[in-house]
Amino acid sequence: MEQIPEPAKERLLFLMRILEKNREKPLTSGNLEALTGWSSHTIRKDISFLGGDYGGGPGGGAKKAGTSCGYNPETLMPAIKAALGLNRRRRFCVVGLGRLGSAYLNFQSFELGEFELAAGFDSNVNRVEILKSPVPLYPAYKIPEAVNRFAIEIALLCVPGEAAQASAEKLAAAGIRGIVNFAPVVLSLPPEVAVRNVYVMDELRALAVKISH
Amino acid sequence: MEQIPEPAKERLLFLMRILEKNREKPLTSGNLEALTGWSSHTIRKDISFLGGDYGGGPGGGAKKAGTSCGYNPETLMPAIKAALGLNRRRRFCVVGLGRLGSAYLNFQSFELGEFELAAGFDSNVNRVEILKSPVPLYPAYKIPEAVNRFAIEIALLCVPGEAAQASAEKLAAAGIRGIVNFAPVVLSLPPEVAVRNVYVMDELRALAVKISH
Repeated sequence: MEQIPEPAKERLLFLMRILEKNREKPLTSGNLEALTGWSSHTIRKDISFLGGDYGGGPGGGAKKAGTSCGYNPETLMPAIKAALGLNRRRRFCVVGLGRLGSAYLNFQSFELGEFELAAGFDSNVNRVEILKSPVPLYPAYKIPEAVNRFAIEIALLCVPGEAAQASAEKLAAAGIRGIVNFAPVVLSLPPEVAVRNVYVMDELRALAVKISH
Repeated sequence: MEQIPEPAKERLLFLMRILEKNREKPLTSGNLEALTGWSSHTIRKDISFLGGDYGGGPGGGAKKAGTSCGYNPETLMPAIKAALGLNRRRRFCVVGLGRLGSAYLNFQSFELGEFELAAGFDSNVNRVEILKSPVPLYPAYKIPEAVNRFAIEIALLCVPGEAAQASAEKLAAAGIRGIVNFAPVVLSLPPEVAVRNVYVMDELRALAVKISH
């Protein structure tokens, strides 16, 4: 398969979410244009990276007589999943079991999709022992051993800001490949570790910008 | 001031975060191109919406003899803030005081920037009475009264998925203008209410896509 450029991957991921919410009926690239704001040309090009035939844009599917117009969510969705590497389960862990971290310990499987929570870690041994949890909890010094044993690829980093950089480095050294960072600091890590930052202030700002007129 | 297009606003917001982390030295549009991936032409155009002179790109500031090359973070940052409507404090509340919601009750002011937490709400009166909090907590039926009294503009919605739509409608009816939605559901609200969704699954997926090669 052709290598998919990063921006196209991001759009395909967004498209997949739209398809998940619209499983019932085919969507034309015109429908998708209205839902995403991207041009139907861009959408058709992104989908062309997947190879295969998933229906098509306005008139696209209609080229063949008797074919309904629009992309078929039931075939397009799995094709995007496969192309983006989302067609296998991946394990993740929660690091830092304060209020935020322990909230994520208790997420339901439908909130996690193809991801499986495998373990939780905290530097406070006492907290690890008393917290109720659906997955095993370990003191932080066991991160290298447990990450390796459970083949954990991703960590939700929920430690306080002042501990975040050191924890992230420990996770990177243990072989973690991606970190969702909830601590309000910018992490400095080797380029092979991917980071996504979730900062409440950024979400508030994005809203404030939208409502400022 | 000229009306700034939405995509330019989003880029300016991102630029503001970069400037906040790089207060010391001027940044050329070439530096910013490397940090953002946007063309220096786009960056210069976005900044031109602000009006005024903030230094400039490679060669931009050098047009005047003795002017250092690059944008000056100390003048550019407040100009972006003003243009995006981020130059005044806005009040927000937390709705749903389970683990996730009560974590956000206890965020420190440096994690919130120009936003001020004004109140918390939960449908469980008992929880409202026993939770320790730096701000007043109220039962959910007091949302209309408190939103109005404290001039709250934004809500962090941390209720369980099955309660999210009803809570969001109540907030919209009370005059809330923006919602950060942490519940794993898609909210259906009047267009004048802005929504930002924070779904852990989406963050995990975005990471999985990045690490899948």
